[in-house]
Amino acid sequence: MEPITLEQAIRRIGPADAEARRRAEARQLRLTKPPGSLGRLELVSVQLAGIFGTEKPRIGNRAVIVAAADHGVVAQGVTGYPQAITGQMVQNFLEGGAAVSALSKLLGVRQIIVDAGVAGEIQDHPDLRRLSAGHGTDDITLGPAMSARKAEQCLTAGVNLAVEAAGSGADLIATGDMGIGNTTAASAIAATVTGRSPRETTGRGTGRTPEELEHKVEVVQRALTVNRPIPEDPLDVLAKVGGFEIGVLAGVVLGGSAMRRAVVLDGFISGAAALLAFLLCPATRDYMIASHRSDERGHQAVLAHLGLSPLLDLGMRLGEGSGAVLAMPIIEAASTCLCEMATFSEAGVSVRNPKEAARESRPQ
Amino acid sequence: MEPITLEQAIRRIGPADAEARRRAEARQLRLTKPPGSLGRLELVSVQLAGIFGTEKPRIGNRAVIVAAADHGVVAQGVTGYPQAITGQMVQNFLEGGAAVSALSKLLGVRQIIVDAGVAGEIQDHPDLRRLSAGHGTDDITLGPAMSARKAEQCLTAGVNLAVEAAGSGADLIATGDMGIGNTTAASAIAATVTGRSPRETTGRGTGRTPEELEHKVEVVQRALTVNRPIPEDPLDVLAKVGGFEIGVLAGVVLGGSAMRRAVVLDGFISGAAALLAFLLCPATRDYMIASHRSDERGHQAVLAHLGLSPLLDLGMRLGEGSGAVLAMPIIEAASTCLCEMATFSEAGVSVRNPKEAARESRPQ
Repeated sequence: MEPITLEQAIRRIGPADAEARRRAEARQLRLTKPPGSLGRLELVSVQLAGIFGTEKPRIGNRAVIVAAADHGVVAQGVTGYPQAITGQMVQNFLEGGAAVSALSKLLGVRQIIVDAGVAGEIQDHPDLRRLSAGHGTDDITLGPAMSARKAEQCLTAGVNLAVEAAGSGADLIATGDMGIGNTTAASAIAATVTGRSPRETTGRGTGRTPEELEHKVEVVQRALTVNRPIPEDPLDVLAKVGGFEIGVLAGVVLGGSAMRRAVVLDGFISGAAALLAFLLCPATRDYMIASHRSDERGHQAVLAHLGLSPLLDLGMRLGEGSGAVLAMPIIEAASTCLCEMATFSEAGVSVRNPKEAARESRPQ
Repeated sequence: MEPITLEQAIRRIGPADAEARRRAEARQLRLTKPPGSLGRLELVSVQLAGIFGTEKPRIGNRAVIVAAADHGVVAQGVTGYPQAITGQMVQNFLEGGAAVSALSKLLGVRQIIVDAGVAGEIQDHPDLRRLSAGHGTDDITLGPAMSARKAEQCLTAGVNLAVEAAGSGADLIATGDMGIGNTTAASAIAATVTGRSPRETTGRGTGRTPEELEHKVEVVQRALTVNRPIPEDPLDVLAKVGGFEIGVLAGVVLGGSAMRRAVVLDGFISGAAALLAFLLCPATRDYMIASHRSDERGHQAVLAHLGLSPLLDLGMRLGEGSGAVLAMPIIEAASTCLCEMATFSEAGVSVRNPKEAARESRPQ
């Protein structure tokens, strides 16, 4: 696949296929089960039909793109973890020891690990993609995180990672993140885009005491006051209070949508990236599947703004794409039921009065 | 494996291994993630450690036991579906066209299909287990569903199905049901055991109008008034207002627990069976995993009584074991994270002050 520009990606994104959705909905009513009894699985299957443009949307390969970067705002003491962990965890992803790595191996998902701007040096590894925009962002309490040029560079890199993954057969593309300090950036993005206060979008991140949470809320507020990001301008928001990995993941959402693939969003950081992608192109929403409800406070605001309802609610708050990879079997199960179940007539199973059956079918 | 009696099974059931649970909890704190950040996956992994008696509980094979039977109470017009569907769906399971069949194939789960007492004739099939206790129960609004002898026969059959599945390598054993009219029996069991009113334990089943639901509540109430099942006597409850497949599934819960395997409960019917198993032997609870929250009203009362919190909440209400099979990858993922993730020291990842880390670890 040839690399494409951000503008080209956005131009390519169209709405999902309404006719394929209708055919899938009609097929669901003919399958050997009471109408609606598979709940959310039916809705997901219809979404997949719209994305892939077919009544029987079969899932081929799956990939998770894990983007990592550092954040200058850690200088403000927003996290108790040392910055060195970002790079160490990238190494851990590459060696298969992290949660997302163990889950990806179990569930047959290809890991694509991206250095989007880690502070330390990362050892060479065949599976590492080096797309670094710098050695961590600047401190957002003092000025913008990055230049407008770098923001666009991150988005474009993400677009082309998704294009490449889709080109090599991935039908489900999950987003994942790693970056000590990145919940602070995500909280600032979420507050800006959703119009909520930093208190509503700021959570404990990697585990903080109440006092530390208060401090973090104040840091997010200061970042907004100093930078004044423009809510209607996603590039401005990303450059002023974002992060390199968040820009890459917003690009992944755009690139996946442009390639008509299902984009499986992880938790809060991925959600902040999805907010930016949605602002750049609202039609991306048709391609988004929210994998899980993160235990991180701001995620709720993100999901509400995007109008997404997550598949899982397991109290997870790790990032890395762990929730997105975990939801992939559920998404594939939705597709499998639609594609592989017998219809009433195929199975010779008696059907109720069709009018009655249709009346019973409730939207979930 | 030699068949065992119901009494032998109950005698073999002991509590989960507390020491293995403690070692698994300690291991979770050493894995490369903030403590508690995998949420419910961590709790499930600790439960599995207790069940299998090891700090690293690896999951081998998986099976779903789908028990089918008919219910004389359909004569009272509690369901709009014809009774013939029970047998037709058994055939559909055997031919791979049902939801549970499609999901089992996708997720590598062995289907064990059991005729526990279907009214019609079922064609021969190598995968069919014929353990029929009769051609459907008697109408519970007129008298008991079955004799005490048949109730015990069903339980023993279920015990030995689980013993056999465990003997052939299944570490996760899911329960599934099929039976037109069986939500009425399950509602009567749930009302008896939990002490709630039939209104609180009766739902729409395979899709009913408000008037039909009123009628169903009244039918359940009549079954209780006529039979007066004794809440403390699970065999009495099963015989008076239960069903053949519900007895078999209660036996599966007992047999799985006796073999120290994880028993993955599907929705409302499986939950009613679990209530009976729990009454027969409270230690079975250590071996139960609630796969999903069914959209069927009475399931909530069942889960609350057993103190179980379901993994999935997807608005499903199909039965067949569909929710239980769907949760299996989540359960395996919990085990995989505990067993395969690197520890901080293995991965060379910096750790926070251990005291601080322990303070952050919250029960989910």
